[in-house]
Amino acid sequence: MMEVAVFGAGRIGKIHAGNVVRQPGVKLRYVIDVDAAAAQALAAQHGAQVATAEAALADKAVGAVVIGSSTDTHADLIQRSAAAGKAIFCEKPVDLSVERARTCAEAVERAGVTCMIGFQRRFDPTFAALKERLAAGEIGDPEMLVVTSRDPGAPPVEYLKRSGGIFRDMLIHDFDIFRWILDDDAATVYATGSVLTDPAVGTVGDVDCTAVTIRTRRGRLAQINTTRRAAYGYDQRFEVLGSKGMLQAGNHRPTEVTAATGTHVSQDLPEHFFLERYRAAYAIELAHFFDAIAHGKPVRTTIGDGVKALELADAATTSWREKRIVEL
Amino acid sequence: MMEVAVFGAGRIGKIHAGNVVRQPGVKLRYVIDVDAAAAQALAAQHGAQVATAEAALADKAVGAVVIGSSTDTHADLIQRSAAAGKAIFCEKPVDLSVERARTCAEAVERAGVTCMIGFQRRFDPTFAALKERLAAGEIGDPEMLVVTSRDPGAPPVEYLKRSGGIFRDMLIHDFDIFRWILDDDAATVYATGSVLTDPAVGTVGDVDCTAVTIRTRRGRLAQINTTRRAAYGYDQRFEVLGSKGMLQAGNHRPTEVTAATGTHVSQDLPEHFFLERYRAAYAIELAHFFDAIAHGKPVRTTIGDGVKALELADAATTSWREKRIVEL
Amino acid sequence: MMEVAVFGAGRIGKIHAGNVVRQPGVKLRYVIDVDAAAAQALAAQHGAQVATAEAALADKAVGAVVIGSSTDTHADLIQRSAAAGKAIFCEKPVDLSVERARTCAEAVERAGVTCMIGFQRRFDPTFAALKERLAAGEIGDPEMLVVTSRDPGAPPVEYLKRSGGIFRDMLIHDFDIFRWILDDDAATVYATGSVLTDPAVGTVGDVDCTAVTIRTRRGRLAQINTTRRAAYGYDQRFEVLGSKGMLQAGNHRPTEVTAATGTHVSQDLPEHFFLERYRAAYAIELAHFFDAIAHGKPVRTTIGDGVKALELADAATTSWREKRIVEL
Amino acid sequence: MMEVAVFGAGRIGKIHAGNVVRQPGVKLRYVIDVDAAAAQALAAQHGAQVATAEAALADKAVGAVVIGSSTDTHADLIQRSAAAGKAIFCEKPVDLSVERARTCAEAVERAGVTCMIGFQRRFDPTFAALKERLAAGEIGDPEMLVVTSRDPGAPPVEYLKRSGGIFRDMLIHDFDIFRWILDDDAATVYATGSVLTDPAVGTVGDVDCTAVTIRTRRGRLAQINTTRRAAYGYDQRFEVLGSKGMLQAGNHRPTEVTAATGTHVSQDLPEHFFLERYRAAYAIELAHFFDAIAHGKPVRTTIGDGVKALELADAATTSWREKRIVEL
Repeated sequence: MMEVAVFGAGRIGKIHAGNVVRQPGVKLRYVIDVDAAAAQALAAQHGAQVATAEAALADKAVGAVVIGSSTDTHADLIQRSAAAGKAIFCEKPVDLSVERARTCAEAVERAGVTCMIGFQRRFDPTFAALKERLAAGEIGDPEMLVVTSRDPGAPPVEYLKRSGGIFRDMLIHDFDIFRWILDDDAATVYATGSVLTDPAVGTVGDVDCTAVTIRTRRGRLAQINTTRRAAYGYDQRFEVLGSKGMLQAGNHRPTEVTAATGTHVSQDLPEHFFLERYRAAYAIELAHFFDAIAHGKPVRTTIGDGVKALELADAATTSWREKRIVEL
Repeated sequence: MMEVAVFGAGRIGKIHAGNVVRQPGVKLRYVIDVDAAAAQALAAQHGAQVATAEAALADKAVGAVVIGSSTDTHADLIQRSAAAGKAIFCEKPVDLSVERARTCAEAVERAGVTCMIGFQRRFDPTFAALKERLAAGEIGDPEMLVVTSRDPGAPPVEYLKRSGGIFRDMLIHDFDIFRWILDDDAATVYATGSVLTDPAVGTVGDVDCTAVTIRTRRGRLAQINTTRRAAYGYDQRFEVLGSKGMLQAGNHRPTEVTAATGTHVSQDLPEHFFLERYRAAYAIELAHFFDAIAHGKPVRTTIGDGVKALELADAATTSWREKRIVEL
Repeated sequence: MMEVAVFGAGRIGKIHAGNVVRQPGVKLRYVIDVDAAAAQALAAQHGAQVATAEAALADKAVGAVVIGSSTDTHADLIQRSAAAGKAIFCEKPVDLSVERARTCAEAVERAGVTCMIGFQRRFDPTFAALKERLAAGEIGDPEMLVVTSRDPGAPPVEYLKRSGGIFRDMLIHDFDIFRWILDDDAATVYATGSVLTDPAVGTVGDVDCTAVTIRTRRGRLAQINTTRRAAYGYDQRFEVLGSKGMLQAGNHRPTEVTAATGTHVSQDLPEHFFLERYRAAYAIELAHFFDAIAHGKPVRTTIGDGVKALELADAATTSWREKRIVEL
Repeated sequence: MMEVAVFGAGRIGKIHAGNVVRQPGVKLRYVIDVDAAAAQALAAQHGAQVATAEAALADKAVGAVVIGSSTDTHADLIQRSAAAGKAIFCEKPVDLSVERARTCAEAVERAGVTCMIGFQRRFDPTFAALKERLAAGEIGDPEMLVVTSRDPGAPPVEYLKRSGGIFRDMLIHDFDIFRWILDDDAATVYATGSVLTDPAVGTVGDVDCTAVTIRTRRGRLAQINTTRRAAYGYDQRFEVLGSKGMLQAGNHRPTEVTAATGTHVSQDLPEHFFLERYRAAYAIELAHFFDAIAHGKPVRTTIGDGVKALELADAATTSWREKRIVEL
């Protein structure tokens, strides 16, 4: 039985804790959070204990940690967990600083521990099936990628201030999708953005809509469009054009009801937001993590992937700020 | 903490056991099956014990039973469980004999226990949403119902022999959908059927394709078409025409991938069979059962519903065999 | 250059006249209608002349007639046209009386002229493609057919009085689709119906919703559901289940715009009614008619098909009225 | 009766000639083409005469010209037709040189004649309906536009050599769509491209895949992705994100047949290429042209629009060649 410590008892911590307890051979032992009440509630729900980070990391029975606390704690917890010899699952991003993320990656490598970054989209049933079919050659060689990634609404401006900006906070997932799907490296990045949904976003030096173009070393082309506010909900689509066809990943709907009335034929809006849309993905990624540990297999989304996505986010941020094409 | 005994450790018993252990405040205590190895394996998986029916029903700590054993055991177990004062969840059908089913219903009523029949389709997210929107008046008064209900392949002939025939074995779900959606009583039933997929089906006095028409007391019209073998998989659709529009329940797909190649644009086949298609429904119906018990609320699918669906199955069987319109 | 006389300057006559003038090698010579002003207007639009039936049929230069006048004139005009040696295109139905229709068919045969009945649905691009793929074996042997055929609104009660009833007036198209798609003969017909949309329909001895089941000699099953009033428009779908899969014919939409707003994702309603939905079919059927004449080839929808569809309409009417299964 | 001269008896000339003869009050008088046989065949088909450009333009009875000859003849014919006082319909582009196009526009203005450029996509039923709904405020203010514009296959390299490059030859339509839909001016253009489908394209200094981003003066963002070769056919989609929702224009299919087999559920590929996809649009744009002339109304796609689209094509070409963001 592997014992696990979960850092973070907020929205995502709860998801991960719920998935930890569903793994066979895995036991949720500790919950750690600066908010003592939240930690207590989550621990009680799953028969776990509240602990400090020190205590949890010092407990030899703890084989793995799941880090779902705030972004500014990730790097530190990764390094301490690696030093303590724990297998690590950490939410994206590794850190807002690429340099710090690289340092973490080195620490992980030195420690020789498993470290998986939570790019849960790669585990989404639709996205994973698309990737598998692409890899099987169903549409030949990939040539172009179009990613549509839109949130239903912006987080509070207070959050945005500390978010690292839209490219690091939101598009980091899309940059990872780009790398995973095209399996190619970026040669140049061009990014532009606007404040179109809420002027407050501009007051903290950020944008709420972006258009990014990545050209790969092999000449493949990728375009990403994002917004913080799609009135119809969480829009998570991408399509790959290949030499023999196209694969598209569409949105998921809560139900398959179609209504025809006097004015139109309609279907449900997409799943509301990431907790709904990626519910299955969150479960599958944690199962993958524990399965990899149990069988000594590599994880699908490494800390190296986390660093690479950050590098793209940095390049995009520079391109937007300096109004120029950035070479990588 | 309510303790529960699960009868049946086969395919459906495993599903129910898995859902029992996910209910808060509920503990799976006993597994009962004539196949000792199957019972042992399922009990071990969930930390429960193997028991005899007698022992399980005699245990005062057991508050509820979940009956997922073979059809010919349902009536007896319902009656004994009712006599023992247990809350009962039983898979459809109550029994192949309407008379016996009525006797069971009376026993349940006398005992004053909760008895829910597993018409899981009513708990499917798509079907339940449709029903809710219909009840809210979105398409006015319902006028016509078209049900398409097709299995991906026929069970073994050995099974068919003891199944009570396609109308009792397969259409019983569709008859329940009819009653639930139109909220009206059948005035006449016309049923016809054919052996089109496998001559062996005919050798046991059954058919593999049916076409049923029900006319309700208020003059509404329902048509049901079924087959034991749809080459493209499990097809579970229905549509309701109302005075102000139409609501359609479509199939669920495993993924939302669309592929465009040199010959066509394609999507996934429907979810393979009932275990996949109704995975969510099975979980929701058990949660509903335990929630109803906990709060003293009525269950949505009563043993009375089980009797009514059987009456329609009997009428359809008679209509098919005697080639006549049957009045109810 | 073949000269043509068009009977009927109403809604359907105008459609046919417009298609006649688009045929290469064909000239619209005469328009005949009891409404002199309508005849004059249509003739003027296409550079044709108004004439009486006598004059038009007596003109040796007229090689073909297109009959789009009211139903009660069809049989008489077919017989006179056949006697005059003209090739005949006539709107459905041949007549409301099967006997009269058979007499017409005999007259046509004796005269040895081409006579095509306007079952335009067989020429609809979607329906024709489905039939072609079915015939090519894409889904193996057909086993079941489900036809959904719904009008957007009922015609005036005055029209219904003289219409022959819903089975002859509206379902005649569906009976033809049944024969064409399954390529099999009806063994039994069961029909029921209700007055659900407008009580006035009942006052003239008709119904506005029907449910029909046809069992073929080879045991195939067909179900047809119709209504005079679908709030969302003209609904013209059918699906064929075969031993290797299913083919579905869906509705056509005016545009391919999809809108996603705060409440739902929506698309256009189906094409409004038959003039829009079958615009292409009307053009293609007339081209087929003149092509068949020009090359001495048989037409796809013969007067024999018209008689057969009427026989089914009669059987359905009897089944509904007498509440019994009718054998053919 | 307005008499018309059609320049060009090739693929597009035939389409336009066929639409000219369908206009009420319009007569096709002359066909002009350097290929005498082609001119003769087209003229004969429609009862017109072959003529030289001089003769046709000198004929006072000719009120309008339709220019569908090769691109290098457009500017000259526009100028001569304007000088002769004819109303002008000319295929895009006005010319490959923006300066020359501007000169033409000035000549048209001086002459005071109607001059419409064939941006037929604005007349496509789907695109036009989307624009109308956008203008009606259905999704609030437009914020982002994503255009997918893919040909089924590249033209011969010989054609590409004289085409002006992919941005002028193919994307000119997309630039016009951008201007029309967002109703805003470009502030910056970034374009990149690759040779991915056929190395021969590179040998003539062109690319076959492009990714373009336009930022408008109001900060709106548009992304265009194109390829010369989509294995699944002609892909013509765009979507507009607005403050209150999204409108998407999807592909048109030849039929609405859906097939479900043992492997997938499939629908038709999109309409094969522009002649099929925009058949209705070509007819509607010519009707619009003659209607505008008849009623002295402005045309929807002016020579000014032609110049503006060319300016964007030039900017994109520069951006791609010089690897820099171009300001307008």
